[in-house]
Amino acid sequence: MAIESIITEMAKAARAASVEMARCSSHKKNEVLLKIAEKIEADAERIQAENRKDLVRAEEMGLSAAMIDRLTVKDATIQSMARGLREVAQQEDPVGAMTETRTRPNGLQVSKMRIPLGVIGIIYESRPNVTIDAAGLCFKAGNAVILRGGSEALHSNQALASVIADALRETGMPEKAVQVVPMRDREAVTHLLAQEESIDLIIPRGGEGLIRFVVEHSKIPVLKHYKGVCHVYVDEGADPDMAEAISFNSKVQRPGVCNAMETLLVHRAVANRFLPAMAKKFAEAGVELRGCPETCAILPDIKAATEGDWYEEYVDLILSVKVVPDMDAAIAHMTQYGSAHTEAVVTQDYARARRFVRETDSSVVLVNASTRFNDGGELGLGAEIGISTSKLHAFGPMGVEDLTTTKFVVLGDGQIRQ
Amino acid sequence: MAIESIITEMAKAARAASVEMARCSSHKKNEVLLKIAEKIEADAERIQAENRKDLVRAEEMGLSAAMIDRLTVKDATIQSMARGLREVAQQEDPVGAMTETRTRPNGLQVSKMRIPLGVIGIIYESRPNVTIDAAGLCFKAGNAVILRGGSEALHSNQALASVIADALRETGMPEKAVQVVPMRDREAVTHLLAQEESIDLIIPRGGEGLIRFVVEHSKIPVLKHYKGVCHVYVDEGADPDMAEAISFNSKVQRPGVCNAMETLLVHRAVANRFLPAMAKKFAEAGVELRGCPETCAILPDIKAATEGDWYEEYVDLILSVKVVPDMDAAIAHMTQYGSAHTEAVVTQDYARARRFVRETDSSVVLVNASTRFNDGGELGLGAEIGISTSKLHAFGPMGVEDLTTTKFVVLGDGQIRQ
Repeated sequence: MAIESIITEMAKAARAASVEMARCSSHKKNEVLLKIAEKIEADAERIQAENRKDLVRAEEMGLSAAMIDRLTVKDATIQSMARGLREVAQQEDPVGAMTETRTRPNGLQVSKMRIPLGVIGIIYESRPNVTIDAAGLCFKAGNAVILRGGSEALHSNQALASVIADALRETGMPEKAVQVVPMRDREAVTHLLAQEESIDLIIPRGGEGLIRFVVEHSKIPVLKHYKGVCHVYVDEGADPDMAEAISFNSKVQRPGVCNAMETLLVHRAVANRFLPAMAKKFAEAGVELRGCPETCAILPDIKAATEGDWYEEYVDLILSVKVVPDMDAAIAHMTQYGSAHTEAVVTQDYARARRFVRETDSSVVLVNASTRFNDGGELGLGAEIGISTSKLHAFGPMGVEDLTTTKFVVLGDGQIRQ
Repeated sequence: MAIESIITEMAKAARAASVEMARCSSHKKNEVLLKIAEKIEADAERIQAENRKDLVRAEEMGLSAAMIDRLTVKDATIQSMARGLREVAQQEDPVGAMTETRTRPNGLQVSKMRIPLGVIGIIYESRPNVTIDAAGLCFKAGNAVILRGGSEALHSNQALASVIADALRETGMPEKAVQVVPMRDREAVTHLLAQEESIDLIIPRGGEGLIRFVVEHSKIPVLKHYKGVCHVYVDEGADPDMAEAISFNSKVQRPGVCNAMETLLVHRAVANRFLPAMAKKFAEAGVELRGCPETCAILPDIKAATEGDWYEEYVDLILSVKVVPDMDAAIAHMTQYGSAHTEAVVTQDYARARRFVRETDSSVVLVNASTRFNDGGELGLGAEIGISTSKLHAFGPMGVEDLTTTKFVVLGDGQIRQ
């Protein structure tokens, strides 16, 4: 069968399964999640054997050590997938919640009821654990899901898919509620992105190239984040110890992730005192600094930042530093060069804290806390499916509730419109 | 200047104005809305003079009487635009509301804060009052807006734009917060739909052709509804008077709108008694019926429905009628032929009412009430910008809150991530 037909059939089957999924009780959904967790542990050997086929091929193809590491299903990966599913089973089910109930003058009772989105497509890169993590969250929210992992992880993902299918069958749920695209061809992605009749939402997870490809080709709405160019602004009068701790944590605690700080903005009034101490601490941690002219005048040993540096998501131990005359200039810098991902201020000033919260246009705005807290788990959403930096439907870290929508429910006693 | 450059400049200017809009107080926004209302009344003569230029051209081009009627700015249109703005000024401002506040174990206080979307593009057809109604709602929610009305209404829309610009200037707000595309060329729409760097959301309002064109060409997220194929299902044991009143009201009260009933589904057990009485009432109102074979056996004088009828949005005094064996068959029919717009059940059965609410996949689900209540005003949302039949961001009638999104606000005391 041609790839296009296979993908179309998968999408239609997912749509059909989504009807049953939407009616599924929380109890039943949790039973399935726990069953998958159990089976992943029981079938660990088989999953790892399939994973080794991917690893052999990856070595033949000369993939980097880092990529091979991401591809490997270790014992710890098995445990973490099973634990993740059990945690999602513990989370509250968002489906069915009724909110904003009001009674109209004519007696109609109007509410919003939370319902699943329907069918979600997830397109991701090499980590096979995404297959389980994403499937678990979509399933918990009552959606059918089609997963398309990296071509280098095909055997691993197929093995995980068969574990899920077994669990669905044994619990009497439709097997097509969770499907993995069974071929490596890139063409499959393009066909998947054209199934706007059957798929309600696409979530790409991976590098900027993947995300741009998906946005370019999708006829289906996409929830995405391109990059995290996150800032910390150290305000005039900021507590120096707090400013140092937050700046250091935001950059160094885990530099390779999207919520790490990439640019440090410092108020002119504190730059002379703050920057030398901070630079010393960064140097000890191996952080390379790139400064604006004022920064370089204070720290003569560091490199000058280019215009390009302010747009850069280093995802590495590199940091650009700029001295600004006031908070307006700091916010203007974030607006111009930032990515609406995460912005933090360190301040002791009440009015400026209020203004920063209101006026900074970013999915997560923090006062006196590290940028590293932009994370679904840290913010109390439970497991996270991704971070959206575009504003429609969800803005910021997305938990299970963001995989749902609401419909209006209107209860009457025979009302007609006059 | 080329059209593309003009549109790009407009979009960039809107983006810049949106920053100021987002910081604008409710008080200020309401002042602007009331000022526009006042000026529309004061400048009515000039607006109507410009409107007459459009009407002369429309007659030369041979537009239908119905289209010319929609295009005409009557005295009542002036009053209705001004009244609409004053009502929107009275509505609560959604921006700034903080919800879902929780304190994390480490003391971080996490909230969601409601914020404007940014820049909204509205693409619509002939009615000039949409220029004012849509601009008012977008403005109230703190957004900048670019309006592209029908080419036949260019003079009218330009006149309304100049009234809005005067009001913005006199109140010290950025004039570019509300802009009207100043040329007739269709090319302008295509360029507008490509401004994904500056525009956050596109809302098309008009016929299915317009909406499909917008969805096809837009690189920006679109909130849309294609059509309303709305159903009423008369259940076994339904109160016959209530069933008759709701069916009649859903079809006849205003047949030319999207929330009018297009297909009536009747349980087999009540069909013999219900349909003849109902058909008589419909006949008196001039409604043409098209029935399934079972319906035609009961009502031998009516036309047989074709497969195509079940998909049809007549927007006219025509109704298709089908007899079904049970509620499952009714819901299955709605799923197959409906448009996820509005579905109503008339029933006295508690369990089936609960099931209908849960299992019907539609933006508005009603029990014992007319489909005509799917309307922002009727459901208590205030003025409505449209009805979404796709699930992302908003599903169902959209009020001013649906023109906003939320960001996370995190307040700390120096927290860093461990």
